[in-house]
Amino acid sequence: MSATALGTADAELVARWCDELALVTEETGRITRVYLSPEHARVNAIVAGWMQDAGLSTWQDAAGNLHGRIDGATPDAPVLLLGSHLDTVVDAGRYDGIVGVLMAVRTAARLTAAGPLPVALEVIAFSDEEGTRFGKALLGSSAVAGVWDESWWDLADGDGVTLREAFTRFGLDPSRVGDAAADPTTLAGYLEAHIEQGPYLEQAGQALGVVTSIASARRFSVEAVGEARHAGGTPYERRHDALLAAAEAALAVERICRASHHVGTVGTMTVEPGAVNVVPGLARFSVDLRGEFDDGRDAVWDELTKAFSLIGERRGVSVTPTEVHRAPAVFCAPRLMDAVRAGIESTGETAPMELFSRAGHDAMSLGLVTDVAMLFLRNPDGISHHPDEFVSTPDIALGLDALAVAVDRVARA
Amino acid sequence: MSATALGTADAELVARWCDELALVTEETGRITRVYLSPEHARVNAIVAGWMQDAGLSTWQDAAGNLHGRIDGATPDAPVLLLGSHLDTVVDAGRYDGIVGVLMAVRTAARLTAAGPLPVALEVIAFSDEEGTRFGKALLGSSAVAGVWDESWWDLADGDGVTLREAFTRFGLDPSRVGDAAADPTTLAGYLEAHIEQGPYLEQAGQALGVVTSIASARRFSVEAVGEARHAGGTPYERRHDALLAAAEAALAVERICRASHHVGTVGTMTVEPGAVNVVPGLARFSVDLRGEFDDGRDAVWDELTKAFSLIGERRGVSVTPTEVHRAPAVFCAPRLMDAVRAGIESTGETAPMELFSRAGHDAMSLGLVTDVAMLFLRNPDGISHHPDEFVSTPDIALGLDALAVAVDRVARA
Repeated sequence: MSATALGTADAELVARWCDELALVTEETGRITRVYLSPEHARVNAIVAGWMQDAGLSTWQDAAGNLHGRIDGATPDAPVLLLGSHLDTVVDAGRYDGIVGVLMAVRTAARLTAAGPLPVALEVIAFSDEEGTRFGKALLGSSAVAGVWDESWWDLADGDGVTLREAFTRFGLDPSRVGDAAADPTTLAGYLEAHIEQGPYLEQAGQALGVVTSIASARRFSVEAVGEARHAGGTPYERRHDALLAAAEAALAVERICRASHHVGTVGTMTVEPGAVNVVPGLARFSVDLRGEFDDGRDAVWDELTKAFSLIGERRGVSVTPTEVHRAPAVFCAPRLMDAVRAGIESTGETAPMELFSRAGHDAMSLGLVTDVAMLFLRNPDGISHHPDEFVSTPDIALGLDALAVAVDRVARA
Repeated sequence: MSATALGTADAELVARWCDELALVTEETGRITRVYLSPEHARVNAIVAGWMQDAGLSTWQDAAGNLHGRIDGATPDAPVLLLGSHLDTVVDAGRYDGIVGVLMAVRTAARLTAAGPLPVALEVIAFSDEEGTRFGKALLGSSAVAGVWDESWWDLADGDGVTLREAFTRFGLDPSRVGDAAADPTTLAGYLEAHIEQGPYLEQAGQALGVVTSIASARRFSVEAVGEARHAGGTPYERRHDALLAAAEAALAVERICRASHHVGTVGTMTVEPGAVNVVPGLARFSVDLRGEFDDGRDAVWDELTKAFSLIGERRGVSVTPTEVHRAPAVFCAPRLMDAVRAGIESTGETAPMELFSRAGHDAMSLGLVTDVAMLFLRNPDGISHHPDEFVSTPDIALGLDALAVAVDRVARA
């Protein structure tokens, strides 16, 4: 398989753009770019310029998402959405989300070079997918899907700044967030290209894959409360060590999820008082749980809560989980999956791999208001959310060729 | 058993003083008072006033320790040191260290009311025993013992302020720290009263105890380095989860120490990048290990390092401990223990309990230059390093009576 000359040229441009955006970070030497930050404003401005150069008209919506549009052949043409996100985790890679936005920009330009399509193409660079700043993921695409929850305004970042305050400081009007919602009756669907964030395409030796569904996910914040006591003087039988309860709980997440073919991760852990010579009285940790289907995921969570309770009872430590995020599994629309498959086949792949996404994506929010599908790009060794995250320029080129065919097919259906 | 009227009156004063010093904190609502802080200066000033009221002449030494002295009958009389510390852990109780300093002040006043003793009495309120700010314990008493290590100057607090800078900001001259060292040839010994920080006296139904030795201790900072990866996309077989390795290590500390009748505690744990949707790439934790004898403690540590290595190998996570503190077991001097025992017997206790201290104390440093002994006060339920830490005023009164007899006996020996 080899990409077209146009795909290769565009891929080189996209790869250079990814390198350029990697410099927009709050921390020199590593990539961290969060919602409603100065860096968010800066990438929006940079990408808006690239969109305009490509012939798209641009605007920032009421939730800080950047849009770029090329009208369809008629004023009432339906709108086919393309996109992904520009925000990152802490110490991120340079491709997660970003490469999908930039591929969409080049695809819109490529397909309209000879004139408008029967659909309007609208590229959206979502402002918050990772949830890094406020702990709640998919804020940008939730606004576009019109499912903004009023309780989110009081979410606070690590410095105590609420989402409401951050909106105002960024120059957005919290009372206008509803204006970001798309009108579902105008939509022809949503297509997103994204790196895989797992090793399955690489294992299969394929550059591109068709996503069948996006994992069902739940996230919890768990608090273990024991008793802080002197580390020297307190015998084991008098201890209620919150950290040891949390350690057992973290290992239970691994054991139970692994056995049930789910994915569970404890990504954060803080301890109080956090002194070398004090038995920990409090430990807080996160649980991120994902599965292909909602009911399987929920059954695993039930098993986990039972395990947490037993651990807590044995140690005299109260272990209390609070749900902070829940997203049902989203299934991709067959007609859009067919288009993505046709796109991949056009690159020479005779049997494109189908896979479900264990990672969450903006397509989850859009799936609430329109049909969605996703094209995955091979991610060597599956490393993501890490500076070593990578996708090769030849694979981006194949992805651009496939995406162009898929979008064109949907546009002319 | 009941205390003397003088003991009871002094105990009420000491308990009031403890309440008053509890208000000197960097955080309203909880007690945190660390080395070379404004609060350190403030307690030194307050306690110096109380010392002067009790007839002691006072000065602050080159390491920020507060001294109060009553001369002996002759100019060349040996010096009997009494004391404990005024610094605290984070979110501390109000008695650990503090009650021992204040009991020493009242004891010096009581024993010299009728004229000087054959020894000079010198009360030292040590400035740093807990090591809360710089991670290194016993800084104050190390200076008095003359065992200051030049490498300590570069220790930094959580804000990156080095010990050297903190000395200067506090108004101390780092180059003069040697001036704080006591001359061992002048010393008659060191006696320290302290709450037990464990439940053994309470279990025995006794108010006071004779300390036989102070635990041998080692402390380690352990770094587990795995690989940060996407929490959704990374299958378990590709993970190198640093937090899970640390969790297993913490549980191994408990299991191995418990089986060998040692005390091991993991009191701190931090995780990087520390995001809900990222497999932890790095975890740091502390290990505090204590035992009655050095060789037993070292054998347990060997077992722990082997367990850490196995955990690391199995998970593809490097687990690297660095020793940050090592203190040999200190054995109390029989002649001083006899005096403490006689003091306790004078309160009516016929068979005073002997116990070894699992917690470290300033007496460990002083043990390097003179004979030491300690009097323990009952600590209900053994809670220490916690706001619920307590010692009753009747027990303080018995302690004051016992300490007066013990000091008098050593002074006239």
